[in-house]
Amino acid sequence: MTEKTTQPRVLIFDTTLRDGEQSPGATMSHEEKLEIAGLLDEMGVDIIEAGFPIASEGDFAAVSEIAKRAKNSTICGLARANYKDIDRCWEAVKHAKSPRIHTFIGTSPLHRAIPNLTMDEMAARIHDTVTHARNLCDNVQWSPMDATRTEDDYLCRVVEIAIKAGATTINIPDTVGYTYPMESAKIIRMLLERVPGADSIVFATHCHNDLGMATANSLAAVEGGARQIECTINGLGERAGNTALEEVVMALRVRNDILPYRTNIDTTKIMNLSRRVASVSGFAVQFNKAIVGKNAFLHESGIHQDGVLKNVETFEIMRPEDIGLTQKNLTMGKHSGRAALRAKLKELGYELADNQLNDVFVRFKALADRKKEVYDDDLVALVADEATMDAHDTLVLKKLRVICGTDGPQEADMVLTIDGVDHHIDATGDGPVDAAFNCVKMLFPHRARLQVYQVAAVTAGTDAQATVSVRLEEDGRIVTGSSADTDTIVASAKAYINALNKLIVRRQKTAPDADVKSVNYRDAG
Amino acid sequence: MTEKTTQPRVLIFDTTLRDGEQSPGATMSHEEKLEIAGLLDEMGVDIIEAGFPIASEGDFAAVSEIAKRAKNSTICGLARANYKDIDRCWEAVKHAKSPRIHTFIGTSPLHRAIPNLTMDEMAARIHDTVTHARNLCDNVQWSPMDATRTEDDYLCRVVEIAIKAGATTINIPDTVGYTYPMESAKIIRMLLERVPGADSIVFATHCHNDLGMATANSLAAVEGGARQIECTINGLGERAGNTALEEVVMALRVRNDILPYRTNIDTTKIMNLSRRVASVSGFAVQFNKAIVGKNAFLHESGIHQDGVLKNVETFEIMRPEDIGLTQKNLTMGKHSGRAALRAKLKELGYELADNQLNDVFVRFKALADRKKEVYDDDLVALVADEATMDAHDTLVLKKLRVICGTDGPQEADMVLTIDGVDHHIDATGDGPVDAAFNCVKMLFPHRARLQVYQVAAVTAGTDAQATVSVRLEEDGRIVTGSSADTDTIVASAKAYINALNKLIVRRQKTAPDADVKSVNYRDAG
Repeated sequence: MTEKTTQPRVLIFDTTLRDGEQSPGATMSHEEKLEIAGLLDEMGVDIIEAGFPIASEGDFAAVSEIAKRAKNSTICGLARANYKDIDRCWEAVKHAKSPRIHTFIGTSPLHRAIPNLTMDEMAARIHDTVTHARNLCDNVQWSPMDATRTEDDYLCRVVEIAIKAGATTINIPDTVGYTYPMESAKIIRMLLERVPGADSIVFATHCHNDLGMATANSLAAVEGGARQIECTINGLGERAGNTALEEVVMALRVRNDILPYRTNIDTTKIMNLSRRVASVSGFAVQFNKAIVGKNAFLHESGIHQDGVLKNVETFEIMRPEDIGLTQKNLTMGKHSGRAALRAKLKELGYELADNQLNDVFVRFKALADRKKEVYDDDLVALVADEATMDAHDTLVLKKLRVICGTDGPQEADMVLTIDGVDHHIDATGDGPVDAAFNCVKMLFPHRARLQVYQVAAVTAGTDAQATVSVRLEEDGRIVTGSSADTDTIVASAKAYINALNKLIVRRQKTAPDADVKSVNYRDAG
Repeated sequence: MTEKTTQPRVLIFDTTLRDGEQSPGATMSHEEKLEIAGLLDEMGVDIIEAGFPIASEGDFAAVSEIAKRAKNSTICGLARANYKDIDRCWEAVKHAKSPRIHTFIGTSPLHRAIPNLTMDEMAARIHDTVTHARNLCDNVQWSPMDATRTEDDYLCRVVEIAIKAGATTINIPDTVGYTYPMESAKIIRMLLERVPGADSIVFATHCHNDLGMATANSLAAVEGGARQIECTINGLGERAGNTALEEVVMALRVRNDILPYRTNIDTTKIMNLSRRVASVSGFAVQFNKAIVGKNAFLHESGIHQDGVLKNVETFEIMRPEDIGLTQKNLTMGKHSGRAALRAKLKELGYELADNQLNDVFVRFKALADRKKEVYDDDLVALVADEATMDAHDTLVLKKLRVICGTDGPQEADMVLTIDGVDHHIDATGDGPVDAAFNCVKMLFPHRARLQVYQVAAVTAGTDAQATVSVRLEEDGRIVTGSSADTDTIVASAKAYINALNKLIVRRQKTAPDADVKSVNYRDAG
């Protein structure tokens, strides 16, 4: 047995699909959730928090389906401290080989004031709900929300109650991103010392990055005795986001000399997951983001770099290959066939059904005709774009022609298929994107407002594909649409239409007051 | 005297203009550097590291001019461990009311191997160069590069030599972003305990964010005894960047209960500086960036938020106003006059000369005619865009007309003024942006390659202005251009032309082998 395998194991609990998806604008479709869950499972994530089953039919369906498909990961659902939430959660996760119910209540003075419960009343509620959950499922996680601002004595008391009631994991959330490493370690240490039965369960740490310390706080909690880190890909999450999975996992690997703990994560899958989550959430990763930013491994190019040339360790503590960032070579040419495309996509982590492969192949050929070099990232963008389209879409862009430039007005001419029927219109606008969006608004009137619009080139070169993401808001519902095309304006129109299609689904699924986001679960961690 | 003013002071050393500007693609123009330095000075930054004077004529000129203009901040320049660098640095910073020379050498085994010096030879070099610097300037900072990977005994030895030779600040750089909070605190504590004279100088901490722990590592160093934090706005910097100023400053403020140290920073200026640095560097800030991300203070909107409604502290540990993030109201209408514009711009932090104000006013009127609502951010974008244009620009876009859409080829028709003479051409391309860029390439042939292209909407609404930033690379020179317009394609062409104008200046100023980036200074911290 090597030294490494004798090290204590830290469980990785990924909540990209629950706490991450909860961030304004990051709503994902059913298919996107299934895809991300599949990738997390393959990467070796121990527990996937797949959603909040009572929040909506959509959340319930996603958690159920993810539970059915999971190969190795434990599948967890979230539930507030009431029987109805817990029952609904169990209905969704019970399909998993290894299901978990995660129930929580806010225990800090500020949070106790909301349901207006006394300390004793809340303690009784915790006992009853955790007992109920444990009667349904052997694997129960309980969280005292805003734990880092809860009085020490009360925190010890409620943790003891939850353990006695059968909780197998106790999560200590730093809900507002308020803690500091020494404090984070101290809380776990205190609980292990003071709470009877604490050594029989797993403590988890769940940090937010409001002060930029989520990673350090999570690792400090591990030093304090926590053996589960809750995190999200790219640090996706409300406000400044959650602990970034890629940061804690790579820190445990790079600094194994002073952090002697092991995880089950295949780090070479990090970069692909980062790209997929950025794409489906519409939350781009900044250049200087740790581990997964475009510049994270970039040294000023074309420079005489004595240090790096002589010894790569002079300035690099990780290798790009460690996170699956391989040299982006020219991968496919216009003469590449379907089999080559399938093999290449498999190498990139995609296994497509035949009809999907056909669609991607047609688009790949068209792209190869127009673009000099087709890179890995181009294929990833094509597959991602293909995945945004659904046979059930209400709106489909059929044709678009736009005239723009320094001398306005900018004009657009569009054919939009609505429920299978073609409609034609032209419109002017304040810029070509506005003109195209105006066509959509005239053909399919809606009240949604554009909140965010952003474009990034997929690869280098002026002939690169552009990926556009747009965020729309209507009556508190926030949706993100995305698309890729070598024509930025076409990609913009398609992204806008993609967001509208998602909005239509959201409208149909839920009346405004039954909407997922109207449930006051607020940050279960 | 209040409790707060009796707390130990932590000096804030900003290196946005040196270590930040050093990151691939973040090159700033002379005017941009002066503007950012002015804002840092106003914000209360104690020491501004303005550049690396020997690196290029441009760096020298920027450091000299910033030194001349500084009102309160100490102005610091960087120099390697040789007399020529130090003399050149002094020539630039000596104009400041409070000048500082910062000299460094790599002391870890990996870095000692590069100049191939023995421990004794390097110790002698440190003694000689710090003595030389101190003979020129009373305020000398010395850094053992890669300190966190230097042997403890050798680190103590060289720090003692530097102090004896006259260094007044000793900076401990975590050059590769490798350290961990406990380790970071321990190094400073060890130096304070073991090195004679350590209590007579200021220790500084300089962290990089490769493992996502720069903020926690910096604060831990302060707990260990450091009294200067080196940082950059938005965490700009090579690879995953440097410690983010906004994070350490706000953490010291929010957690003053357990981190009882004060800074001189006016935190209400943070948001404006963050926006300006994002704009001039071309490094966008991600939505979920701590403190300054678009989502940092955003709770899912349009929702019944029991917690936040009942008590804002339930989920917020800072107020948006603390960082100068005010409600973005409709600020100006099409009937607003020049005086109102001047007053509004002053409120936003801009004081323009009359001719600049006139230019911005003309553009504001044109924008107000086209766009329903003109917000603060629109004005900021207009002023920023105006600042990218220079009377000496070789290339100016005069006219552009583009036709694009689903049925290609996309076509562009352009009039480009080159050195005052109009040239007309039309071209097709792979998308409208490619077509427009092809016009520029045909009229002004160049070898630069497009590395990054990104677009963001300035405000909400489909009629928003778009800001485009492009990054070009030619023979190892990397430049970033930006522009704003309600027409995305026009903004794209202008951003590309802006980058080319910067490249032309770089080409003229420096032969390739005298270029700033060819100097092997590599990360003085």
